[in-house]
Amino acid sequence: MELEFIRWLGEHLPRHPRLTVGPGDDAAVLAAGRDPRSVVTVDLLTDTVDFDLARVDASRVGRKALAVNLSDLAAMAARPLAAVVALALPRTDALSLAKRLYEGLIPLAEQYDVAIAGGDTNTWDGPLVISVTAIGEVMPSGPLVRSGARPGDAIVVTGRFGGSILGHHLDFEPRVNEALWLASHSRLHAGIDSSDGLSLDTWRLAEASGCGAELDCGRIPIAEAAFEMATRDGVTPLDHALGDGEDFELILAVPQDAAVELVASQPLACGLSIVGKFVAEAGLWVLDETGSRRPFTPRGFEH
Amino acid sequence: MELEFIRWLGEHLPRHPRLTVGPGDDAAVLAAGRDPRSVVTVDLLTDTVDFDLARVDASRVGRKALAVNLSDLAAMAARPLAAVVALALPRTDALSLAKRLYEGLIPLAEQYDVAIAGGDTNTWDGPLVISVTAIGEVMPSGPLVRSGARPGDAIVVTGRFGGSILGHHLDFEPRVNEALWLASHSRLHAGIDSSDGLSLDTWRLAEASGCGAELDCGRIPIAEAAFEMATRDGVTPLDHALGDGEDFELILAVPQDAAVELVASQPLACGLSIVGKFVAEAGLWVLDETGSRRPFTPRGFEH
Repeated sequence: MELEFIRWLGEHLPRHPRLTVGPGDDAAVLAAGRDPRSVVTVDLLTDTVDFDLARVDASRVGRKALAVNLSDLAAMAARPLAAVVALALPRTDALSLAKRLYEGLIPLAEQYDVAIAGGDTNTWDGPLVISVTAIGEVMPSGPLVRSGARPGDAIVVTGRFGGSILGHHLDFEPRVNEALWLASHSRLHAGIDSSDGLSLDTWRLAEASGCGAELDCGRIPIAEAAFEMATRDGVTPLDHALGDGEDFELILAVPQDAAVELVASQPLACGLSIVGKFVAEAGLWVLDETGSRRPFTPRGFEH
Repeated sequence: MELEFIRWLGEHLPRHPRLTVGPGDDAAVLAAGRDPRSVVTVDLLTDTVDFDLARVDASRVGRKALAVNLSDLAAMAARPLAAVVALALPRTDALSLAKRLYEGLIPLAEQYDVAIAGGDTNTWDGPLVISVTAIGEVMPSGPLVRSGARPGDAIVVTGRFGGSILGHHLDFEPRVNEALWLASHSRLHAGIDSSDGLSLDTWRLAEASGCGAELDCGRIPIAEAAFEMATRDGVTPLDHALGDGEDFELILAVPQDAAVELVASQPLACGLSIVGKFVAEAGLWVLDETGSRRPFTPRGFEH
């Protein structure tokens, strides 16, 4: 539903000169007032779809609601500044639930120096909904958009992939510091965060850049949780890494020489890997362990 | 629940130097980057509480979701710049519902030159939730906060009050142009929008300013809808005007001489009225038609 709707929106939303980067990227860039570098993004999470309040403490939900937005800012190489929080709380124990949400959210806000600028707190007869809007600013180097990848660029990723459902999707570290470091110390052509899955989001980045992508399966860093999931469901760890959503790692287009240098020096604690390259022909391919190349249907979470 | 929670938040949210005006006013003012005049506000609306999707076309709901935010910006005397929209859509007919919401929202955005900067569109098993975050900028005269009223100031209001539930709560005009005109042509000490009721929001403005307020019942402009409601439920039109929520008019603290001048010249099509004055003693009073003064318990919608 979301992709079809985004297409409809693209046809119906008036283009506004104030938007340096409009809807469709990880966040929008706004030429507001005297500051042409405002970045804004929103994510709404609902009970049962994005978390299960019956099984998870609300403080982790509050943390996640902010973290997914910080991940979107990171994907633009933007520094977080502020956030606002809107809640629809089930009437039962609404007050204690609201407090727990904030008790998870506030420490993350402090960690990344995000000002909680306000909110809107409501009760209703439905399940919990939490919507966070985050505001940031892009670095002087400019926003890291999805559309800048060039054929030949390496696909560079942070961290490891797959099995996020086992806990990482709640407790992940948004790659804010990593993105800011990389934007100022390397040459990034494009970026996206892997919220919906490595293969799907790599494909999205390639599509936005008017090119294709080739993922080298032997080089994809697979999370321990993906191996754990494999023992449970029989899907291979690699397939979990390619298709599972909510890793919230960075997927970057980096010139080959800069990418090789990054991976050789490994400047980030989370690790950096080259997992393939962007190619001229539109589409997504995988190289398997034997070196054979085949088209691959991008998989991941569709909203 | 909301007031108790706001108190809790006040004790637990870290004060951030980036917030010129923090949570608790109609919107927050953010000293972001090179621009110290960003204003941000969020409102989340839910089916059954803020509208009844079974009885109202979704385009009016989409319009309202943006309009309530523009009303908050107006209450800060801020010019709207951009908005982001987060949706939780029931799975049935999600796409057509999303389109109708935007078909109501987009014309209002165009009317007030608001860039729709992005959004997050989700489906789930619950009812419709729509959360809009609006970003604006305050005028060089500064933000119109709640805390600036002084004893002796006139209480000046735009428009008429009461009976909003009959339709005004969906189709009201946010007082953006009025607020900007008043901020640049008169002397405003404080302001709030009447989202929860004339008496409750007047009391809030007084409380935030450390003073009290006295409403002169004979001077309150009563909406036709309040008279219509009175024929249905036997509550007086005046009580509807004092207690009904969602009028979305401006309630302003204005020095007496400037207020008299404004009301004499009537520069705005919506009308301006002096409906009382701010007083030194904390609390809320009403003067009835006979001139007798009594304490009044503020009434209105509590979230």
